[in-house]
Amino acid sequence: MASVDLAKRAYDHGWRLDPIVRSLLDTDFYKLLMLQLIWRKHRDTPVRFSVINRTRSVRLADEVDEAELRAQLDHARTLRFSNRELIWLGGNTFYGVKSIFSPDFLAWLAEYRLPEYDLSRGEDGQFQLEFSGGWADVTLWEIPALSILNELRSRRALRRLGRFELDVLYSRAKTKLWGKVERLRRLERLAISDFGTRRRHGFLWQGWCVEALKEGLGKAFIGTSNVLLAMNNDLEAVGTNGHELPMVLAALAGDDDAALRAAPYQVLEEWRATYDGNLLVALPDAFGTRAFLADAPEWLADWKGFRPDSAPPIAGGEEILAWWAAKGRDPRERLLVFADGMDVDTIETTHAHFKGRVRTSFGWGTNLTNDFRDCAPAPMPELTPISLVCKVTQAAGRSAVKLSDNVEKATGDPAEIARYLRVFGEAGRGRQAVTV
Amino acid sequence: MASVDLAKRAYDHGWRLDPIVRSLLDTDFYKLLMLQLIWRKHRDTPVRFSVINRTRSVRLADEVDEAELRAQLDHARTLRFSNRELIWLGGNTFYGVKSIFSPDFLAWLAEYRLPEYDLSRGEDGQFQLEFSGGWADVTLWEIPALSILNELRSRRALRRLGRFELDVLYSRAKTKLWGKVERLRRLERLAISDFGTRRRHGFLWQGWCVEALKEGLGKAFIGTSNVLLAMNNDLEAVGTNGHELPMVLAALAGDDDAALRAAPYQVLEEWRATYDGNLLVALPDAFGTRAFLADAPEWLADWKGFRPDSAPPIAGGEEILAWWAAKGRDPRERLLVFADGMDVDTIETTHAHFKGRVRTSFGWGTNLTNDFRDCAPAPMPELTPISLVCKVTQAAGRSAVKLSDNVEKATGDPAEIARYLRVFGEAGRGRQAVTV
Repeated sequence: MASVDLAKRAYDHGWRLDPIVRSLLDTDFYKLLMLQLIWRKHRDTPVRFSVINRTRSVRLADEVDEAELRAQLDHARTLRFSNRELIWLGGNTFYGVKSIFSPDFLAWLAEYRLPEYDLSRGEDGQFQLEFSGGWADVTLWEIPALSILNELRSRRALRRLGRFELDVLYSRAKTKLWGKVERLRRLERLAISDFGTRRRHGFLWQGWCVEALKEGLGKAFIGTSNVLLAMNNDLEAVGTNGHELPMVLAALAGDDDAALRAAPYQVLEEWRATYDGNLLVALPDAFGTRAFLADAPEWLADWKGFRPDSAPPIAGGEEILAWWAAKGRDPRERLLVFADGMDVDTIETTHAHFKGRVRTSFGWGTNLTNDFRDCAPAPMPELTPISLVCKVTQAAGRSAVKLSDNVEKATGDPAEIARYLRVFGEAGRGRQAVTV
Repeated sequence: MASVDLAKRAYDHGWRLDPIVRSLLDTDFYKLLMLQLIWRKHRDTPVRFSVINRTRSVRLADEVDEAELRAQLDHARTLRFSNRELIWLGGNTFYGVKSIFSPDFLAWLAEYRLPEYDLSRGEDGQFQLEFSGGWADVTLWEIPALSILNELRSRRALRRLGRFELDVLYSRAKTKLWGKVERLRRLERLAISDFGTRRRHGFLWQGWCVEALKEGLGKAFIGTSNVLLAMNNDLEAVGTNGHELPMVLAALAGDDDAALRAAPYQVLEEWRATYDGNLLVALPDAFGTRAFLADAPEWLADWKGFRPDSAPPIAGGEEILAWWAAKGRDPRERLLVFADGMDVDTIETTHAHFKGRVRTSFGWGTNLTNDFRDCAPAPMPELTPISLVCKVTQAAGRSAVKLSDNVEKATGDPAEIARYLRVFGEAGRGRQAVTV
């Protein structure tokens, strides 16, 4: 007989909650980088973030229990950055830079907690989950809100499986992921990182995936966006900035079309004032990449690279290569980061396409940390990931807008979208189905 | 942090041995059935059993450490049938029969322990491992000797793998086995059992395989030959008799050719005197199936079935069907048990071939409990199973002989083999490579 730890068993009987988020560092690194900028420049700008399920066919509020959701959100609100986490943030080197987070910012983080949330159930079977307040207070909700919803959904699905079926499920998922690792291992000079926090099947599974990439890819695995996993596994924390910066700054431009047109570049100037070097990676697609590049200031061509996010990877990359060429810059010293719904097939083709012409790196998200297709003993659609986002929807009393290179990903008030389209133009935008 | 059971960790530090065989019931059921007959009729007949590695290319004594082997064999010798095991043997129903084991036999079992062994290292890189003594004392060594050697070999191989690689290995092996289960599930009226004790990768892995068949196949999984697993999992213990009975009885015939020719049928008479009903399954191939059927007594056609063991399954089965037809028996009420190196492909084809013509059942051995092909992160030939057997080699001072339907499986002194071939004839024998 295996020995039984009676104390542990008795303790376990009393569990009220198996928390999904157990640390405020269990978030994407780009949130902390953006937060420092936001906190310095715009901390009190009133914003609203909203969770949006782009996969309307999945009635999330039917699959996830509201009381469980509240319990997990409430638990996340009890978290604080611990001393050792703050010491690590202050003492670690990120992107080759020491002391990237200033002492005053870290002191503010030490007091930080996630603010209140606003949760109700819509008639469309979706939750209405929103976070309102000063930008610096609210922004960190994005990742825990998403990882909580996604993990609650998969936990609920797995409850239908027996002990043995779960064993088969995870064995198959591990086998599948390791098969992907073996394919990726063949790519010369691959640089890939985990971007899968928000859409993960679960925290522990993301941990396994990160371990698999570390074991299987060696140096080709350049890090994880998850700050907690980076700390615990001695990996690089990766990520730079996201759409919320241009979206809020565009909203702050008010009715002034010229100020609106200038907003994306104001973001970059603020970013460059806060960070430099390897962190100078621009996200060009918030209001359409074509317009962004056409009006971009000369100095942007000296930045390290771009993260084309919503265009098809090869077309999106070529557009930027052409822009660098027009500016007389050698792309072989520049970087393209691909991170929009990538999986092994698209990583292979994109990697092969740009080989020798530009440095590439891949942020691997949903298809890394939440690929359970065909892993359950019987088909379980509840394990298919959904396209869940948590976006800034209002800023300074206005609708926040994203146009994106993909019409399917546009968000915001229709009248404002029309105005943005008029200001930035529609050139170069396409339509691709959004699956993850 | 996970809580640590300090007492358990401290206890674990002191492990000298992780025993492979922890119970005398961790053996094949046919050994106990045969043992009861042997103990009644031939208990003191002097025999010698020898371990033989038919896969000569694998130098087993180079792969397995002799000191570890001795430690495991010595540990097996410390085992006794426990009270609850004896009570279960006495009280359980086997093949629909209660009290199949008599109280006097069980009383003898209660005092039983495995006798001494004789181990040395040959110059060919093989162990010479032999067990000599009265037949009733020695016969039970067969299964633990084999399972110890096979598990020591796989343990040694696995020591080269890290924690993570082991995780991938077992995930792949589970995925692979479950894929087989899903194929078998499609076969109508399948009857299959686990025969994989002797060649298993390890005891715990066999346990997982049995659980997989129980979960995945439901009623089609009719039991396991492993008595301990049958008891622990509330499954039927399956198996009837093996080659050692005709081999020893043939040796006891001495130089008398007529007595030799009669020996295989004497076995059946003794078997029928000991057991009946569903246990009346004959093994026809010890000295060639063609000869066995040609001379078989009329009453054998009323037995429940046959286990054609060394002929190709379809040809071997057809030969028996033809014999039943010649005897005017309806094969649809009879049973053929196929258990020689079966895997999903051959199970599917054999099952399809005999569908509706005769009842079939499958004993699934090595390819169930030891199929780790392509499961390791890098190729590991040490995980490929070998054809290891533990056969009676001498009885009553004479060489024990098996002819088999497959020339590759013949064993015994060449002069005696020649005499047996003269007595039984060579008709119907073929040659197939022996892999498992």
